[in-house]
Parts: sequence; C-alpha cells; structure tokens
Amino acid sequence: MVIVMNEHATEDQVEKVIAALTQKGYDAHRSTGATRTVIGVVGTSRTPLDPREFEILPGVHEVVKISEPYKLAGRVFRPEDTVIRMGDVAIGGREVVVMAGPCAVESEKQLDIIAASVSRYGARILRGGAFKPRTSPYSFQGLGEEGLKYLRKVADRHRLLVVTEVMDTAQIPLVAGYADILQVGARNMQNFNLLKELGRVRKPVLLKRGMSATIQEWLLSAEYVMAGGNHDVMLCERGIRTFENYTRNTMDISAIPIIKKISHLPILADPSHGTGLRDKVIPMARAAVAAGADGIMVEVHHEPESALSDGPQSIYPEQFAELMTQLRIMAPAIGRTI
Amino acid sequence: MVIVMNEHATEDQVEKVIAALTQKGYDAHRSTGATRTVIGVVGTSRTPLDPREFEILPGVHEVVKISEPYKLAGRVFRPEDTVIRMGDVAIGGREVVVMAGPCAVESEKQLDIIAASVSRYGARILRGGAFKPRTSPYSFQGLGEEGLKYLRKVADRHRLLVVTEVMDTAQIPLVAGYADILQVGARNMQNFNLLKELGRVRKPVLLKRGMSATIQEWLLSAEYVMAGGNHDVMLCERGIRTFENYTRNTMDISAIPIIKKISHLPILADPSHGTGLRDKVIPMARAAVAAGADGIMVEVHHEPESALSDGPQSIYPEQFAELMTQLRIMAPAIGRTI
Amino acid sequence: MVIVMNEHATEDQVEKVIAALTQKGYDAHRSTGATRTVIGVVGTSRTPLDPREFEILPGVHEVVKISEPYKLAGRVFRPEDTVIRMGDVAIGGREVVVMAGPCAVESEKQLDIIAASVSRYGARILRGGAFKPRTSPYSFQGLGEEGLKYLRKVADRHRLLVVTEVMDTAQIPLVAGYADILQVGARNMQNFNLLKELGRVRKPVLLKRGMSATIQEWLLSAEYVMAGGNHDVMLCERGIRTFENYTRNTMDISAIPIIKKISHLPILADPSHGTGLRDKVIPMARAAVAAGADGIMVEVHHEPESALSDGPQSIYPEQFAELMTQLRIMAPAIGRTI
Amino acid sequence: MVIVMNEHATEDQVEKVIAALTQKGYDAHRSTGATRTVIGVVGTSRTPLDPREFEILPGVHEVVKISEPYKLAGRVFRPEDTVIRMGDVAIGGREVVVMAGPCAVESEKQLDIIAASVSRYGARILRGGAFKPRTSPYSFQGLGEEGLKYLRKVADRHRLLVVTEVMDTAQIPLVAGYADILQVGARNMQNFNLLKELGRVRKPVLLKRGMSATIQEWLLSAEYVMAGGNHDVMLCERGIRTFENYTRNTMDISAIPIIKKISHLPILADPSHGTGLRDKVIPMARAAVAAGADGIMVEVHHEPESALSDGPQSIYPEQFAELMTQLRIMAPAIGRTI
Repeated sequence: MVIVMNEHATEDQVEKVIAALTQKGYDAHRSTGATRTVIGVVGTSRTPLDPREFEILPGVHEVVKISEPYKLAGRVFRPEDTVIRMGDVAIGGREVVVMAGPCAVESEKQLDIIAASVSRYGARILRGGAFKPRTSPYSFQGLGEEGLKYLRKVADRHRLLVVTEVMDTAQIPLVAGYADILQVGARNMQNFNLLKELGRVRKPVLLKRGMSATIQEWLLSAEYVMAGGNHDVMLCERGIRTFENYTRNTMDISAIPIIKKISHLPILADPSHGTGLRDKVIPMARAAVAAGADGIMVEVHHEPESALSDGPQSIYPEQFAELMTQLRIMAPAIGRTI
Repeated sequence: MVIVMNEHATEDQVEKVIAALTQKGYDAHRSTGATRTVIGVVGTSRTPLDPREFEILPGVHEVVKISEPYKLAGRVFRPEDTVIRMGDVAIGGREVVVMAGPCAVESEKQLDIIAASVSRYGARILRGGAFKPRTSPYSFQGLGEEGLKYLRKVADRHRLLVVTEVMDTAQIPLVAGYADILQVGARNMQNFNLLKELGRVRKPVLLKRGMSATIQEWLLSAEYVMAGGNHDVMLCERGIRTFENYTRNTMDISAIPIIKKISHLPILADPSHGTGLRDKVIPMARAAVAAGADGIMVEVHHEPESALSDGPQSIYPEQFAELMTQLRIMAPAIGRTI
Repeated sequence: MVIVMNEHATEDQVEKVIAALTQKGYDAHRSTGATRTVIGVVGTSRTPLDPREFEILPGVHEVVKISEPYKLAGRVFRPEDTVIRMGDVAIGGREVVVMAGPCAVESEKQLDIIAASVSRYGARILRGGAFKPRTSPYSFQGLGEEGLKYLRKVADRHRLLVVTEVMDTAQIPLVAGYADILQVGARNMQNFNLLKELGRVRKPVLLKRGMSATIQEWLLSAEYVMAGGNHDVMLCERGIRTFENYTRNTMDISAIPIIKKISHLPILADPSHGTGLRDKVIPMARAAVAAGADGIMVEVHHEPESALSDGPQSIYPEQFAELMTQLRIMAPAIGRTI
Repeated sequence: MVIVMNEHATEDQVEKVIAALTQKGYDAHRSTGATRTVIGVVGTSRTPLDPREFEILPGVHEVVKISEPYKLAGRVFRPEDTVIRMGDVAIGGREVVVMAGPCAVESEKQLDIIAASVSRYGARILRGGAFKPRTSPYSFQGLGEEGLKYLRKVADRHRLLVVTEVMDTAQIPLVAGYADILQVGARNMQNFNLLKELGRVRKPVLLKRGMSATIQEWLLSAEYVMAGGNHDVMLCERGIRTFENYTRNTMDISAIPIIKKISHLPILADPSHGTGLRDKVIPMARAAVAAGADGIMVEVHHEPESALSDGPQSIYPEQFAELMTQLRIMAPAIGRTI
C-alpha cells in the first residue's frame, strides 16, 4: 500500500498516519518529494489493511493498494500453469477441453441421446443440472438426486466425466458422490460458506464468474476454496451484466487473456449462458477458444424447443458437430489441440 | 405474452406458433393487421413460458412478456402497503424507521457504547454483523454466536430490536433464536436455498438488493420467501455496480419510488454500503428519505478508525445525531414522521 | 505518479524505469523497502504521463496516478465555492436555483403558458430546446432560431433567464445571441471542439454529464472550457447508464456530494432526464436537493400528452407547484433557501 | 407497437387509448382476451410514437415497441450484405480486411516506417489520427492538416488506403480531401450534426460504437448518415464501459454476430481501444475474427514507448506479423480469407 499525502499536509498529519500504521503492525517507509510526501507500507500483518481507513485521515490525498489480495490463486505464488488431471482428461494443458450436455437433466433417455452425440463429436465431460438455481420460484427446480444418478450412469456409459452444480453446503456430500467436478454457479460465487466447505472436498471445483464480479473478486472466491486446501479450481467466464440487453449478458472475452496472465488456474468459457441465444453460441465459442480459453462448456439439446430449462440457448447436436470441426481448424493457430 | 410475427411470415409459420402454444396449455388469440400478425397468449399453465422459446421459431419477429413474473410481491396481488409490526415498531407505515449500529459486533462493550448513542438519538433497531460475508478469506469473519448474544443483550438493555445477517441455511435456527429481523445480504440475494428456508421462518426478513440485480429479480427473490409462507419481507437498496468507481457502489435512489409503485413491500436504504465513504453517508441518507424510503440502515461506530470491518463507511455518533435532526426537519415535507 | 516494482525486479529494471522518467523530464524519487522498490514521480513536465507506458516496462508491478489530471476545476486550485451571478440570480450560493420549462420549444404560446406557471411558483430560469439532439433522424429536431427568439421574448416577459442547448461549434454565435446560459448536452460532453470554442465565449456554460462519463472525465470536460478562459461552468447530473432499465438512466445522486468535495463548481441535477418517467421526477428532485444540489432543472408541460418531445417525463404545472412547496420545507434542514 | 391494458382496465380507458392513436394518425387493432385487452398499433404516421406517452395513460399496463426504429440500416430493408468497394479493397465481402497504423501521426518518417511494415504483412488500409480527441485539454491534440498530408503521401507510397478521424462538421472538407474513409470516433457517435453532414459526403464512413451506446442507438447513428444519402457506412466495435476496470473498456465481441444478423452493414473491431493493453490486443483480434468480424483495426508502432498517444496499446510490427499469421490459419474455419 502507498499512502500519498496532500500537497499541504502538515508534519503532524504525516506522523499520525505513520503511527496508525505502526499500531497495526506495519512498517512505514517515508519519502518526501518536492511537492508532497509519500508513505510506502511494508510488511504483512495478520489483519489486512482497508485503504479507506487511511483515506479518511487528515492530510491524506489518496491511498493505493499494491499487492493483490489473493495469494494462492496468483501467478506470483505459482508461476507455471495449473493442470487439473482426471483420468485421461487434463484441464489447463495443451488440449482445449469441451464440456457439453443439456441445461437440466430431464430424464435418463434425454440425457443418453445427448451424451451419445456430444461424446461422438469430441466432448470429454458431460454437463447437466440436477439442482437448478432459478430466478423465479415457479420455474422447474431440477430432478435432484434422481438427476445425479442419471448423470453418473449415462456419463459412464459414454466414457465421459460429469460436471454438475452444487447449490448449498448441505448438498455437497450428495453431489460429490456422483460428480467428477463440482460446479459453483454465478449466483453463488460469493456464497462464502459454500466456498469454504468446497475447500475441504477432494474433487475439482468449477467456479463460474458472478454476473457483476470483478476479476479480482472472482480470484478471491477461488482463494476461499484454495485456502481450505483444495487447489484444483478452474474458472469459467459466463457473461457479465452491462447496459446492453440485446444479449442476456455480455460475455467478457478479454477476461480470458487477463486470467491467463495473472493467475495459473485454468480458464474456461460458457457461451450458452454468456449470450443466452442459440445463434450466438457458436461464434462466441470460437471467440473464446481464439482468445486462449482452456475449454468451453456448451449446452446441447436434441429437442431444445421442449427443454424444461434454457432451451433457447441450447444448440442442436448437428450444430455442436459443426462447432467442433471449426475449432479443430482454428486450434493450431494458437498451438492447441482439441 | 404477445408474439409478433414478421411482416413476411407465412400462414404456416403462424399456425406452428399457435400449435406450440396450445401444446403447452395456453390459449392463442390471433389478430391480423395490415402488415403483420400478432398473437396474444392467454391463460396460465403450470409451466411458465420462456419468451426465447418462441423468438427462435421461424417467422417470429419478437416476443414480449406482459405479466410480471412475481405475484405475491406485486401491488396487483395486494394494493395496500404492507406494514410489518414488531412491538411498537411498524415498518412501512407513516414513521421512517432508523436502524443503526456497527458493521460488525466486536465486543459487548463496543456494542453497548454504540447502542446507547443511537438509541438516544432515535434509532429503533440495532444492526450489527455476527457472521460477516467478506470478499477475502483473510478478513475478519465475525464473532459468530458470541456476537448474537451480545446483540440480544445490548438491544434489550436499550429497548431496541435486532437485525442481523444470516449467511447459510444451516445458520437460520441459531440466528432466529436471537434476532428480530433476519437479514439476507446482497451476495446472497439469489441464494435460493436460503430464501426457501426463510419462507418457513416466522420472523421478518430484510432482503438486500444484489449488486447487479434488476428490480424484477429482487422482487422475485422476495417472492421465494413469500411463496414459502413468510409475507413479512422488507427490501433494502444498498447500491448497484456501475462503471463509476469513485464510490464503492452507485446507490440507486430511484429504486425507492419504483418499488413503492409496483410492490406493497416496505423499502429501506443503506447509505453506508451504498457509498462506502463516511462523508457521503449523511447526504445519501437524506436523499433516500426525501425519495420516500420507509427506513434507513446506517453504520455507526464511536471509534471507526479501529473498527474491525468497514470503519471508513461508519459515521460517528455525533454525525448520527446531526443526521437525525436534519431528517426530522425534512420528514413533514413528505407527510412522514421520524 | 507512483511506480511499484515487482518483488523480484532487478536493479537493472529499476534503473531503466528511472531513466525513462528522466528522459521525459520528471524526477524519480526511489525508496527501497524490505520486499520491493517504489519509485515516486515528482515534477510537472509539459507532456502528461500515461501510466500504461510504465506498466508495460519489465519489472514493473503497478503504476498509480496520484494527482488528478484536472487543475482549474479542482478544489485544490480554488478552495472556495464558485458562485455564478447573472442579474439577481446566483448559482452555487445559498439559494437552490430552479430551472424549468418544456423539453422542446414548440410555439410562443406553449412557452408562454409554461413560463407563466413556473415563474409564479418560483423558477428563476426558463429551459427549452430549440436545437434537439434526437437518437433517431426521424424525430422532431427543434424549431431552430425561431425557438431561440421565443425563449428570449417569453423569458423577458416573465423575468426569467434562459438556458438552452448548443449542439455544434457553428451554432455558438447564434445561441449566445439569445441565451443567458449555454447548455452542453450529455451526448456532447466529450465534443472537444465544442468545449474549446465555449472557452472563448463570455457566457456561463451548463455542462451535462455524459451517460457513461466518470466524474473525472466530466471534470476534464469542464477543464476544456475553463482552460480557454471561461471559468463560469456549472455541472448537471442527468443519469448514467447501468444494467437497470426500469428507468431510462440511473440518476447518480451520490455524484452531488462527490462534486461538492472535489470541485468548486456548482452542481445541479436534472431528474427529468435522470429518470425519464413523470412520476419519478418529484421524488428524485427532492433527493437531489436533500443531497446538496445547488439547483435543479425540471421539464414542465401543461399538455405533456401532446408534447413534441419527451412529454412522458414532463410534469404538470400543479405538480411543479407541489414540488416547490416540498422543497421549501426541506431546504432549511441543510441550511439552504429556495 | 402493442399496448397492453391492465386486467381491470375499463371500456372507457380502452377507448381513450384508441382515440389517442387515431388522433396521431395510426390504426388501432383491438383484441380482447379472457383477462385483458391488447391493442395493436398499425400504420406509419409521420410522427414516430414514444411508447412512454401511452404507458402513462390510465388503464395501460405496458407498451411494447415492435418495429426497430432504424430502417435503412436494417436487414429488412436490405437482406444482402453491403460490400463497400474502394479500388481493389472490398469491406464486407469474403476477405477479412486489416487496417493498421499508429494511434497518432507524429511525423512522416514515423508513419513511413510503420506503413512499410504493416503493408508488408498484409494490411490494406493505413490508420492514423491527425485530429485527436483527448480526454484532457493538456494532452497532444494531433498534427492537424500536416498529419493528413503525411497520411496521404505515405499511404500512396505503400499502396494503402487511408482511414482517419474527423471531429467536427467544419473539418469535413479538409479531411475528405485526403482520406479514403472518414472515421467518426466513439465520443462523437451521437454528434448528430456531424452525422448529418457526413450523409452528404461521397466517401465511406467508419462509425465507432459509443462507449455506452446500445446496438440500437449505434444503428440509429448509422441511419443518420444513410438518411442523408451516404449508404457506405461500416461499423466498428471498440469496447463498452462496464464495471470491470482491469481493461479500459470491455470489448463486446457478441456485438459482431448480432450486427451480422440484424444489419447488412460491415462490422469491424478495434481491439487496441477495446482493451487498452498491448498484450490483450492479439488474443482479442483473433476473437473478433473468430466471431465473424469483416475486418480489424489495430494500432501498430515501431517505438510505442515513445509514442505521443496510446503507446501502451500499440503492438510492435513483429507482433503484427505474428497476428497476421495466426489469422490466416484461422480464417478458413469460417469460410474467410485474409
């Protein structure tokens, strides 16, 4: 942290700031320039500093945070890429990994038809919701444990892994009993009790970005899981909320190269939720891979018009096949395989 | 819902749309104009319609939702204002109710000093966090049950009611054992499992607006609680996320008159979180009351510079006194008391 | 500016940064802490520094701007409030000044009816557009010079001053010939050629905030006018663009106390454009005054249902009267008159 | 437009709405359902309807706009893609066209070095600012006409076309005398006088998206130019303003497939302004092409560290070469050449 004093700050004011720092267990490093004094804050005390506490002291012009508040999630802590391995699937390595499946599990038959298709065209992981977070209490809320059973059974049949959402601390043991990857949805990105509990689980976590989460907040949520001992966290961009409402959300493709630079965690993209519109899913999936995503998560449904949830953003199996073909042409341009 | 067909839509396309509606249990009401056909959708089936399902049918130009998806929370369901009564305090009536206290409960002594002040100047409800949702896992996470005990004891001593946050379904019985009002924080506004459980509790709920929640989503979250049988929900605006980052959040004062118009639920405002800066709290508290808020929630601390959480947005007891004096002058302008 | 080096930055990297600063005419003030080096940048060269130029140098962790880029518009340059006096009207003083009138000038008769009303209830300045910036090329674009003539004539008849918009450098002499205050609309807030030309005019300028302008950018636009020699600039908040689209814009009431703190320029508020909805104008006008605005600008129309522009956000004369009554009760709470 | 009445609307209220429509020259098409009445509005009068005028009539529940307010810019008006041809360059066809060059023209030599590079690697059009819109009045404002001369001379030498910004109506004849494409910057997207004047010019216009412009507003600004008779408009996405401030702007890649669907105009992308950070330019340029952009505009500088404007977002010539190589591999995946 750097504390910048006003041009007219008095010596007394400077000393009070330094005293406040010392009291909190930090070293102050003072440097006095021609027009103003700047105080560098050194050391790491147990209590993190809130810059605003110093901003309101008399004579202070501005306070600037320097070190990122996340540690385990940052490249400084771990310079090389994290690669999460599950069987023969590695997320964060050279291969762009594709997760596909319906928004919600509706029946074993529905899931089997879709899993057969996406597996054939190259998906490695089956997605599907058994517990669905819905904005309205009157919408379909998911099949619950029954859905989890179908996911496991169908995925095994087609040699796929399973990723599915867990919505509450109480559900973790149940979901972890069936899934390979535990998904935290955008609305729960700052459900800190859930994150803490997931830190104690020995399964990878897929952490979606909250609709209004900054990249720093997102990494701090990953930090909650990692601080608990579970370092297998993958991030997933799924659109942020902006003034533009032609699309449901604005997919922040630039988050992909940013995360790649400041964090070692794998970064995926979900163009289905990111756009909310079927005919935008394929171009945005291509864009995510072109920008360097380690994987994509796509909603696929063989009969989207009768889907119980989010049919309009699900693509048809044939469209999925076409997307995979396009991605295979593009991947070598950036040194990836698919 | 109204489905607007393209100017060049064929008869066949119109019929397919109508068939899709009929299949889902809705009546279609067709009206053919000079340039295009419009289909009105009538009736209420068990499954809510997703407009996007129809937008993607051939020949469809646009689909328009008409009825709000919330029911119990809307003025149509209940035209008169909801007034939540607890002892001699009524929220949503003529009196502007003031909730005040520290961000986090730190000790019994700290709480007692603050409660004595705010009670003297006219607050009716004591606020204070025992469980704190913090962006970083390394920040102070609250005193837990010990904090709840202090809240109850100190509030009783100063004849105040208690409002405090509950972060997880598992905490509800504990928090409900001590608090008069259960607060749902902004980050949990769409923690649907928590909302459902609160629907079964017999205590009022204070529901903060999520940082990127639309007013409609906020009312749908209230609907989750109400659909469970608990109709004593009060809403609390606390700032939304925008591009302007001079303040932590942009307090959406216009949400106050909007909620007043479309919902019967009481609407409060929290200028402490809404701005994040002590010297903006008083002007924004005045603005909220001037715009018609039923109450305000303000963070007050006698030693904010050593507060364990959010000190920089806490005002001093003397500032709180000054605010109350100003509000008492202003209230009659809009037919309120304080 | 403060340049913070990486924890592992080499001596060579530090020296290169210092060399780059020296080359641009700045003094570097180095301070080496336990874990990293921080370089303070002192002095003011002719070329402003772009922090990003240093962020990308090897070994640099972060660059922090310290001094605000505006000078003349800041409180540091001029600690006391600017009061703009025109005849017996003073904007920025103790009185809250009210500007009212139709969105667009439609006819002399329309303007006269409205001016008579707003003058009777206490407005001091007549607003009305002669040149209208319209999103669609097919909307009413204003009466042009004819409108300016009506404004002058009607305002003089009712002893009001005139504020009206100027859209282009070429229009300045014409508009300045009729108006007392030249308004720059939100869409032109960064029309730098227009701002520069207004710096040469000897009439006060009312500068609306752009829909996505930060407070700093807004002050820099004021700086363009002031740098040209015209220091009589008043600012006007009129709503920013956010994800919430219940209202046309989200009126950023907190901008009022912020501007009051960092700038000496008067700050007004326009709740008509700020909300876009008639029934929200009165509560938001009250909120703006409660938050400390030096004045408000309100659209009033006696027959809004047949207005040629923005009728739905215009209030009736009776509503204007009621608003003025409420404001007169509230103003003493914050030491103002009206 | 569709007007939806309240469930309890009276017959009298319905009739008043119909009367108001008739008076404005529209036909009302009434359809009465089981629970409410819906009024379809048919016909096109000279005065466009403001939905809010009807929303505030008694008994009205909601008003829904149906037809897009733009005409010439929409696919309904012109189903096939617009291809803008200048010599052997065609924008909007099968080839992805690359525009490259420095942010600002600094000298003939600087421009020549950069033009030689970008031409060698495949750029077809030279970009460079002679008049620079700068947030601060104290920043470098461009070389003016001298810069235009260099642009023309250097471009001709390397067989490139010239695109450069025009900031004001008064500058149009001057800039049109040197440039092949006239650029309208983001801050001028709603400078309606400038747009109108460009409608009278016989040169293609490149219209950047405003930082907070919706896609519909952007197309309406194109409509201003087209309504004046100049149909050669190309659009350019350059980032919108969101709460995320890691990047200068959030590049809205999804705008590319959206524009492709609803408009026939070519759509380009500017990843340099879209991100503001050199190391994000290449991934975002790839993403734009992957999403279907008809071209990209990239800032290139051989010595960005000493550039007079926006050096930190300019890429080196070698990086530009690498980008072109990657794009050539990717383009066939979506049926394009480069």
